[in-house]
Amino acid sequence: MAVYTHLSADDLEMLIGEYDVGVLVSAKGIAEGVSNSNWLVETTTGRFILTMYEHRVEAADLPFFLGLLDHLSAKGSPVPRTIHDRAGAPFRLIDGKAVALIEFLPGVSIDTPRPGQARAVGEALAGIHLAAADFPGRRENTMALPAWRKLLDDCGDRLSEIDGSLSDLVARELDYLEASWPGDLPRSVIHADLFPDNVLMLGNRVSGLIDFYFACTDIMAYDLAVTHAAWSFTGDDGFRPAIGEALVAGYHQRRPLTSEACQALPILARGAAMRFLASRAYDWLHTPADALVTRKDPMVFARRLAFYEEHGKTVFRPPAG
Amino acid sequence: MAVYTHLSADDLEMLIGEYDVGVLVSAKGIAEGVSNSNWLVETTTGRFILTMYEHRVEAADLPFFLGLLDHLSAKGSPVPRTIHDRAGAPFRLIDGKAVALIEFLPGVSIDTPRPGQARAVGEALAGIHLAAADFPGRRENTMALPAWRKLLDDCGDRLSEIDGSLSDLVARELDYLEASWPGDLPRSVIHADLFPDNVLMLGNRVSGLIDFYFACTDIMAYDLAVTHAAWSFTGDDGFRPAIGEALVAGYHQRRPLTSEACQALPILARGAAMRFLASRAYDWLHTPADALVTRKDPMVFARRLAFYEEHGKTVFRPPAG
Repeated sequence: MAVYTHLSADDLEMLIGEYDVGVLVSAKGIAEGVSNSNWLVETTTGRFILTMYEHRVEAADLPFFLGLLDHLSAKGSPVPRTIHDRAGAPFRLIDGKAVALIEFLPGVSIDTPRPGQARAVGEALAGIHLAAADFPGRRENTMALPAWRKLLDDCGDRLSEIDGSLSDLVARELDYLEASWPGDLPRSVIHADLFPDNVLMLGNRVSGLIDFYFACTDIMAYDLAVTHAAWSFTGDDGFRPAIGEALVAGYHQRRPLTSEACQALPILARGAAMRFLASRAYDWLHTPADALVTRKDPMVFARRLAFYEEHGKTVFRPPAG
Repeated sequence: MAVYTHLSADDLEMLIGEYDVGVLVSAKGIAEGVSNSNWLVETTTGRFILTMYEHRVEAADLPFFLGLLDHLSAKGSPVPRTIHDRAGAPFRLIDGKAVALIEFLPGVSIDTPRPGQARAVGEALAGIHLAAADFPGRRENTMALPAWRKLLDDCGDRLSEIDGSLSDLVARELDYLEASWPGDLPRSVIHADLFPDNVLMLGNRVSGLIDFYFACTDIMAYDLAVTHAAWSFTGDDGFRPAIGEALVAGYHQRRPLTSEACQALPILARGAAMRFLASRAYDWLHTPADALVTRKDPMVFARRLAFYEEHGKTVFRPPAG
């Protein structure tokens, strides 16, 4: 949540001049993105998000990410398109760092969704899965099951510094997931990180799906499980069944799940919870307590994992629609 | 440079509903303000800055600050007006914290001004001094000479932790300033903190003067001296005479300085440099190195103070215009 790089007015004016978007009118650094810097830029022709890729996202992946935005947007998905520069390039370099100019979309992120909103999010997620079907790009999911094992192995005995019960839960669940993970469910390009702050809404309508920097080729129903794990719990981890049901129902209505995918939702949700537990536990133990980033509590997803372990089969009843 | 408080979409919608500004369309936390949280808010009728006053600014001072914006704006100064709520209040409370909705102004902040831009800034500063002449509000300058002495006394021997030469410079200059500070120069409400990041420009035009949260009743020429100390040096403290001259000339053209004020500029500039040296040195020694705020280097203003001590009389030749 920061702007890591200073861009002067001259830098910004010169950059905007490389695009056919009019003249710079305003630029405000915005408090979004964990590893990128972002500015809300206004020109004489419109508003845009300017993103500077600081760390994690490799320039080698940008053609995939930015091409995906263009593909989905062209198909009518509520996804910001990439503005290409006058030479047609989707991104440019400033002092060796890649920057991209991206369409600004209206809407606000929802903390406490209503069922009608959750249903719309499920529909929108199915929509991007369908729209991505003929996208030619492919990208491996670098945060799939082998990565969870590796991240948690790297934490080792230090997991007990987070919570005494964590090692047992992790060992038991990793073994289960590795033994039982479904390999043959339908795949597409998935978002893989559709938390509420990556969805913009206007009332009950999804006006924007953003931050595709974990997008990859993987099981579509796993993306729904990630979204379920991210949306269906209150701040203190109470399960909100109406939200989970609305997400799945909205998804299923737009893109019917196969019965195999439906049956796999409980294990996919355990995997989704494990994925965020793994990255958060790793970051928790490897980020100095006084660092400039806010560490996210891994135990939130440990509790959701335990919830899915105990209740997953009853939570994911096959949708009626 | 952060957003300290989370406002949910529901919070924001409810708040915006209290104003006659249409329906919420977008809200982005912006990386501006040291002690306040700020959002760039878009509604169906326009764009606004929403400010939440977190710490330093006391609610008791808000009628002064916000009333000043309205007064200056009504007189045609490039200052954002305060949007009043449906009941006419200039600010509201959310969970005990004051929030205000303020007009959005276009423009970008300049790092490296050109003389034509500095001249426009001098003119704009004179313009708010003139426009403030009949503003009924008064506010003591809580960062005037007695405060510099107090802040630096509180640093005590620890000044040497910053730099070995600092104690001597501070002792010598504080004695000089206390003995010679001019008491009888023309006063008005002044901005008192017009650094480049508090000025928005479109080309050579000043489109916005913002962040009036140090505004107070004090010597007008001191405000020009503050602006001179803030604008006329490069990042590595090279003096830029053409910028300083353009600032003073632009000011003088719009509001001619008295000969007493002209003669006082060297000491006022030493005071201005001391004011920022004092607050930065205090913050440097009282902010943990691992805090979430970036400490500003006090030595920048120690060097500018030493520069004005040595060269002030030749720098501030009486303007020709």
